[in-house]
Amino acid sequence: MNYDHIFDQAIDRLHAEGRYRVFIDILRNKGAYPNARCFAGHNGPKPITVWCSNDYLAMGQHPKVIAAMEEALHDVGAGSGGTRNIGGNTHYHIELEAELADLHGKEAALLFTSGYVSNDATLSTIAKLLPGCVIFSDELNHASMIAGIRNSGCEKRIWRHNDVAHLEELLAAEDRDCPKLIAFESVYSMDGDVAPIHAICDLAEKYNALTYIDEVHAVGMYGARGGGISERDEAAHRIDLIEGTLGKAFGVMGGYVAASRKIIDCIRSYAPGFIFTTSLSPVLVAGVLASVRHLKASSVERDGQQAAAAYLKKAFADAGLPVMQSTTHIVPLMVGDPVRAKKISDILLAEYGVYVQPINFPTVPRGTERLRFTPGPSHTVEMMDELTAALVEIWERMELELRRAA
Amino acid sequence: MNYDHIFDQAIDRLHAEGRYRVFIDILRNKGAYPNARCFAGHNGPKPITVWCSNDYLAMGQHPKVIAAMEEALHDVGAGSGGTRNIGGNTHYHIELEAELADLHGKEAALLFTSGYVSNDATLSTIAKLLPGCVIFSDELNHASMIAGIRNSGCEKRIWRHNDVAHLEELLAAEDRDCPKLIAFESVYSMDGDVAPIHAICDLAEKYNALTYIDEVHAVGMYGARGGGISERDEAAHRIDLIEGTLGKAFGVMGGYVAASRKIIDCIRSYAPGFIFTTSLSPVLVAGVLASVRHLKASSVERDGQQAAAAYLKKAFADAGLPVMQSTTHIVPLMVGDPVRAKKISDILLAEYGVYVQPINFPTVPRGTERLRFTPGPSHTVEMMDELTAALVEIWERMELELRRAA
Ligand SMILES: Cc1ncc(COP(=O)(O)O)c(C=O)c1O
Ligand SMILES: Cc1ncc(COP(=O)(O)O)c(C=O)c1O
Repeated sequence: MNYDHIFDQAIDRLHAEGRYRVFIDILRNKGAYPNARCFAGHNGPKPITVWCSNDYLAMGQHPKVIAAMEEALHDVGAGSGGTRNIGGNTHYHIELEAELADLHGKEAALLFTSGYVSNDATLSTIAKLLPGCVIFSDELNHASMIAGIRNSGCEKRIWRHNDVAHLEELLAAEDRDCPKLIAFESVYSMDGDVAPIHAICDLAEKYNALTYIDEVHAVGMYGARGGGISERDEAAHRIDLIEGTLGKAFGVMGGYVAASRKIIDCIRSYAPGFIFTTSLSPVLVAGVLASVRHLKASSVERDGQQAAAAYLKKAFADAGLPVMQSTTHIVPLMVGDPVRAKKISDILLAEYGVYVQPINFPTVPRGTERLRFTPGPSHTVEMMDELTAALVEIWERMELELRRAA
Repeated sequence: MNYDHIFDQAIDRLHAEGRYRVFIDILRNKGAYPNARCFAGHNGPKPITVWCSNDYLAMGQHPKVIAAMEEALHDVGAGSGGTRNIGGNTHYHIELEAELADLHGKEAALLFTSGYVSNDATLSTIAKLLPGCVIFSDELNHASMIAGIRNSGCEKRIWRHNDVAHLEELLAAEDRDCPKLIAFESVYSMDGDVAPIHAICDLAEKYNALTYIDEVHAVGMYGARGGGISERDEAAHRIDLIEGTLGKAFGVMGGYVAASRKIIDCIRSYAPGFIFTTSLSPVLVAGVLASVRHLKASSVERDGQQAAAAYLKKAFADAGLPVMQSTTHIVPLMVGDPVRAKKISDILLAEYGVYVQPINFPTVPRGTERLRFTPGPSHTVEMMDELTAALVEIWERMELELRRAA
């Protein structure tokens, strides 16, 4: 039994497939986002433009957010010092939970240390409380939902992505009286497409199933107050559990779930991933409070993001670049090969100061490796034009196909 | 199938057992810890003394930590904006990983969003990479280790708490060639006892097993540089994986694991709980960097904590209070009943401004409910004398037994 040998083999497999990951070492410049400094190479920090951040609306740099965090830091200190039950329940946590419940029109909400943990802890706990529960999961659901579903130990049925006919087939095949939970996302973040929420809720009603939606890539960005696609589509009241992150459009860190008081009380009381961990730092919570409140009242950031995404999608398409069909703020370019995707990304960083990380397996299926751009309100038209020109040059240099419209 | 009914029953079970948890709503006063404000009741914030925080050394209030966080906040903003692989790998993260690797004398370290996630993600990933791995787990291991072990899907063997003879029996019963992992804690946080690290490492060598130690309640607090019990006992080099938190003695939030470069690279590359989540806010990471560096050089906080714990244990014992046998900074008083533990805690808060949360199932086994005090360098002798007098009064009022030494 040679442990080192096994660990070596595990790493060798990644190199062989061309998907060994190299993290790019950066620091963002507060107040000048999407500008940042990159510490790769040997010539000291180099200025770059970030194109792959999930701080979608640049709220991580917003003066209100920074001010709120600074105030909390000086009022109560760095960390919470305990679990929610033992010493780590602060007034900030309670206020933010009320604010998030209101955002989604739910009775209650519960904070977690991340969106990953909120999915994992909530799905596994809710399903475990329902004897014999069967979980219906969209095939493209995020790794954190898959973890929660696996960890629940329940039976699961995978439905083809966004295919409600297939979902209905699977629902109809189960015993009418067994508990059922349908889990899906609103915006699928690697493709940029959106779930048919109302059609899914129709089926949930017909087959008496609970519904669980991951709005991680939509909260803050869709709906008049940033309540996500479920707000935009006026469907929030039809969904039992709405899950979100505080680390993307809200710009800070953490996760949550909003639901009825009863369901939240069950998760609060039974989920090990909620109970047995130091609660979110009050500094973070204060920042998120400012961010959520701002985005409830302001649509400037959302409008700016949508305009930038529309502009970039059109620029890519006009230039013949293989932009994928996205109906949201996400702008993916299909490459289809991990080595090539990494090469394009490397050239962009080294020669153009453009930072966009290649996306490979297991984040996306093998053979669909891509570059994923997330333009936001702070990316200018000039930046987008330069980016498009750079990509066209690289595409030509690498002899990749450009499909210009006729 | 009535979902509401099932959720109601789940909550009713907790009330019936007297272990429905009520979170106390507090804010700490930075610079005046352990003083805080409590928002329970109806008369506005009330001053309290916190006795159950895991900000053991008050580092969450340390001027160096606050200054570092403020600087990072103004330099790079609130959140990291991405996963470690996609946009969320900052220079702070890289520096802190190097600092933590050095703290434990290991080649590398890896950050997670919490200690819970570091245990869950690391144990499940390492064990999954080793075909047919059997995990040997101390029966009192923390919920997050149990989660990781369960989620690995491996066979597990539970050894009686700190009982190396039993551990050896279980090790000897397995096939010599199957991969083995021994998982245990250094300081058990609800009892305050310590694992026999060298004896466990002897067995690991004899039976060719990997070793995994949770030093969550020891890092920062034991060893000349705060490397934990494994540093104090000069055993760090004998342990394969050392796990810790950034949310207790280091005063902020987050978790990590330190090990060989190879093992860290495997976790970094294969653990979903590491890969698919927004990385720690750089503001937190900057605070932890200052905290770890300070505690590597300063033993004042550690000495103050040990002195306070010794004083309080003696004061409790002299007064005849049922203080448990702890060899560390943790001072637990056995109550043995959830309703009574909650009652004592309620009186302390309402009448004495003393905040100590009752500890009940599932945090400790049923019938061993307790109050757990964590005196630190900022708790004064006067505070400890007042606390002891308050407890004696309540013990007498409730007609509980006091066993004064003859
Ligand atoms: C769909 C989806 N759900 C959940 C998460 C996890 O959220 P967090 O980053 O807050 O852990 C992510 C990404 O990180 C995600 O893309
Ligand atoms: C032994 C032990 N391990 C791990 C954890 C989890 O660490 P964190 O609070 O950073 O999630 C805790 C407590 O929270 C603990 O007591």
